[in-house]
Amino acid sequence: MRLTNFSDYALRMLMFAASAGDRLITIEEVARAFNISRTHLNKVANTLTRSGYLKAVRGRSGGLVLGCRPEMIRIGDVVRLAEPDFALVECFATGNQCALTGSCKLSGILGEAITSFQVTLDRYTLADITPTPKDFLGGPSPPGRTGAANKTKSFSTPDAFSVGDEP
Amino acid sequence: MRLTNFSDYALRMLMFAASAGDRLITIEEVARAFNISRTHLNKVANTLTRSGYLKAVRGRSGGLVLGCRPEMIRIGDVVRLAEPDFALVECFATGNQCALTGSCKLSGILGEAITSFQVTLDRYTLADITPTPKDFLGGPSPPGRTGAANKTKSFSTPDAFSVGDEP
Repeated sequence: MRLTNFSDYALRMLMFAASAGDRLITIEEVARAFNISRTHLNKVANTLTRSGYLKAVRGRSGGLVLGCRPEMIRIGDVVRLAEPDFALVECFATGNQCALTGSCKLSGILGEAITSFQVTLDRYTLADITPTPKDFLGGPSPPGRTGAANKTKSFSTPDAFSVGDEP
Repeated sequence: MRLTNFSDYALRMLMFAASAGDRLITIEEVARAFNISRTHLNKVANTLTRSGYLKAVRGRSGGLVLGCRPEMIRIGDVVRLAEPDFALVECFATGNQCALTGSCKLSGILGEAITSFQVTLDRYTLADITPTPKDFLGGPSPPGRTGAANKTKSFSTPDAFSVGDEP
């Protein structure tokens, strides 16, 4: 049983942003910190920005910052936003051809299990999992670094409204 | 979030066997009822047989039958047997390279959510989800059909001990 990389990266990006506080962060910085693809993170950032979890500050000294307080961001909400679906088995998805559809009692039990999973995640917010900068391998970001320090970086904000940025 | 097809098919095969009661069933019959691959079901049947959930009766009139009472088969146990892992995100899997490993509080929360999921499944057994033969689209199996009726079928039991039969 897996979550998509999209969910994994969305959670990591929010944790990184929360850890940075008011400092503007860049996608390149998150990609480097976690050693993951900038292209994937760009799509994740677009989704998080459109949903208000991140705020994009445009321009050469721009970057990303949390769009609301970490206490307001429930882990369950982020996972529900980022996962394409919770179609545990065929009968939860479109195009289902299972011979038992309509009379199957398994789907109700699996649905109950998914609810338990999500209820647990809903008990926690980003504030509960915000790391400190020194929790990142490779050490903390330079102290006092601000968005202005990113002036020479391109792609400091997500390519908003680009094609193919859905989860 | 998905379960593997292996888990889906394991649950369906057990439901089909439970529905048949003492009658011997064949892999071909299950494949036809659910319109799924006989090759995949063969691997599933091997795993279920090795674990004692199914019993294979060999020979030309052979087939498969539940290895224990449906009340003894917990849904959570079947899913734990069939899923290769519950590595929701990278840090649960081998080869993890996440920069936060060791100090991350997210993994504990995801672990708690997986436990909630499994605890819910553990409340139910195969007896709770056993369909009646008429629940299958295409109507019930012929009444009174026994393993002997399968005499002309090849591959009526799983190819036990074949290579590549792991989940």
